Amino acid sequence: MVNRSGRLSGKRVLVTGGAGMLGSAIAHLAHREGATVTILDALLPLYGGNLFNLSNIWDEITFVQGDIRDRVIVDRVVTGQDFIFNLAAQVSYVDSNSDPQLDIDINCRGIVNVLDACRQFAPRARVLFSSSRFVYGRIESNPVNENHPFNCLSIYGIHKLVGEKYHRFFFEAYGLPTTSLRISNPYGPRQQMKHGKYGITNWFIRQAMDGNPLTVFGEGVQKRDYIYVDDLADAFLVVALTPQTAGETYNLGSGQGSSFLEMTHTIAANVKGTEVRQVEWPKDRYFVETGDYVADIGKLQTATGWQPSVSLQDGIARTVEYYRLHQEHYW
Amino acid sequence: MVNRSGRLSGKRVLVTGGAGMLGSAIAHLAHREGATVTILDALLPLYGGNLFNLSNIWDEITFVQGDIRDRVIVDRVVTGQDFIFNLAAQVSYVDSNSDPQLDIDINCRGIVNVLDACRQFAPRARVLFSSSRFVYGRIESNPVNENHPFNCLSIYGIHKLVGEKYHRFFFEAYGLPTTSLRISNPYGPRQQMKHGKYGITNWFIRQAMDGNPLTVFGEGVQKRDYIYVDDLADAFLVVALTPQTAGETYNLGSGQGSSFLEMTHTIAANVKGTEVRQVEWPKDRYFVETGDYVADIGKLQTATGWQPSVSLQDGIARTVEYYRLHQEHYW
Repeated sequence: MVNRSGRLSGKRVLVTGGAGMLGSAIAHLAHREGATVTILDALLPLYGGNLFNLSNIWDEITFVQGDIRDRVIVDRVVTGQDFIFNLAAQVSYVDSNSDPQLDIDINCRGIVNVLDACRQFAPRARVLFSSSRFVYGRIESNPVNENHPFNCLSIYGIHKLVGEKYHRFFFEAYGLPTTSLRISNPYGPRQQMKHGKYGITNWFIRQAMDGNPLTVFGEGVQKRDYIYVDDLADAFLVVALTPQTAGETYNLGSGQGSSFLEMTHTIAANVKGTEVRQVEWPKDRYFVETGDYVADIGKLQTATGWQPSVSLQDGIARTVEYYRLHQEHYW
Repeated sequence: MVNRSGRLSGKRVLVTGGAGMLGSAIAHLAHREGATVTILDALLPLYGGNLFNLSNIWDEITFVQGDIRDRVIVDRVVTGQDFIFNLAAQVSYVDSNSDPQLDIDINCRGIVNVLDACRQFAPRARVLFSSSRFVYGRIESNPVNENHPFNCLSIYGIHKLVGEKYHRFFFEAYGLPTTSLRISNPYGPRQQMKHGKYGITNWFIRQAMDGNPLTVFGEGVQKRDYIYVDDLADAFLVVALTPQTAGETYNLGSGQGSSFLEMTHTIAANVKGTEVRQVEWPKDRYFVETGDYVADIGKLQTATGWQPSVSLQDGIARTVEYYRLHQEHYW
């Protein structure tokens, strides 16, 4: 395991999309470890950015409201950074399919803006990219390792794949030390709770807290690899501090498969009176991915020694607790 | 082998990028087989489009000058088509690396425009996409089959990969019958001859015809899979007429490896007095891909029975002959 004690102290850290769930978790962690943190976030309506996510550290960070599609602002914020967490994105696979051009604009053009700005103004910065299990699309066998075919079933998944390729290209062509992490099913405090276009675990937590039943299609046996946001943030920092991960791509998940029904019942157990309702699969659900997904995280563990530490039970309990305390900032 | 006799008769065929080398070859062939041909080409300066390429069939086709980035014009030209050859592109890997955003604009945004227009206005059209060997980038072993890893070394290669994924997505999500063909090293009549940013074989032909020496780096032993444009055009039509290729991606090449030096000497043999000059590899040539590439075309042959029929010797002889006759339209 990477000993990162003190290694972020005095370092300059930029988090794009830093007002979102994962970005704000990384910002909190980096700040706690002594980094000078800058956040770039466009705060687009109905996206994940929420300034309340940064309220604990607001006075000690630099917040820039800006969009990765704006090259001028990107150039300015990357200059002088030691670590760049390249997270800003369109994150709904549903929206990516209904508006592919918007997804190109943010998830291709915006990502290249960040990388090209790094090449020019922060050529030695460690750059980490938040990719996704969606690059795999239709799963052929579990657990899934990094050599699984890319059977992308969404424009979002396609553009996460292209994002990885951009990061690899800037490493190969310009020596920019980039790493991509393919995140499984993240959940936890500080995700937006306005809609359920992504982040079904959090969305079910909201439904339960609102007194609504949780609807499970079919048997609910499909497995997912749920990972708590603090584990993700920890992994991002560990990878950032492991130079030999430059140029590589890793799965990042819990490595454990839990059924959809188990996730649902765990939420119900934490929100008294929640009904779990099982109904038949609707017809014509192309856009719902139904197969199992469990990440093989062996490559990441071998490279860094990182381990997830929060169980699904604990993670859901903490998430429910967080939103109970801060519901008014998210509903 | 697909018997296509008469099967294009009366069919409506659209070729985007149809004023370029491959597009015009497909247009000629489809026209000869009785199709009603429409060309969409932006005729961008220094790109491959050249109206002289269509002069033989000019009075019998419909030519629309327009850009695939212009959704209004794309909607209009795809409507009612039976076959769509989706070739319009930024085609220089050199330029893709120096201006990735332009490459996104044409090779991502433009390609999605065509596909989304098909979904709306030509949902049963057969759509063929010109992908490239550049999706493979660094080659791990030869011959290369379709499961080779995507070690993209250029933005161009990355966007050809994403283009394939778009085509596959529109097949999976909307039933649009798309097929992608990964072209090896094309050459032949009607390529632009103004610059050597792509199409080294043609560029060397120009150099030889201009009386310049042909410069080979190192031993010139690196193998390439050179494929004559008429073989390519033939393959595109064969695949278009093979319904079970929908949703698939195939290598398209000669299946034969020829050394760079052999290609060069073949040109020299066709242009009297040409000097072949071997020099040391320049330093710092990241952007020059140096490994061997030979396509395994077994998947395509099994699916369609197609075979290339023009040898490198014949193809180069025909190409030299073409430019001798029509030099003033290309130099």
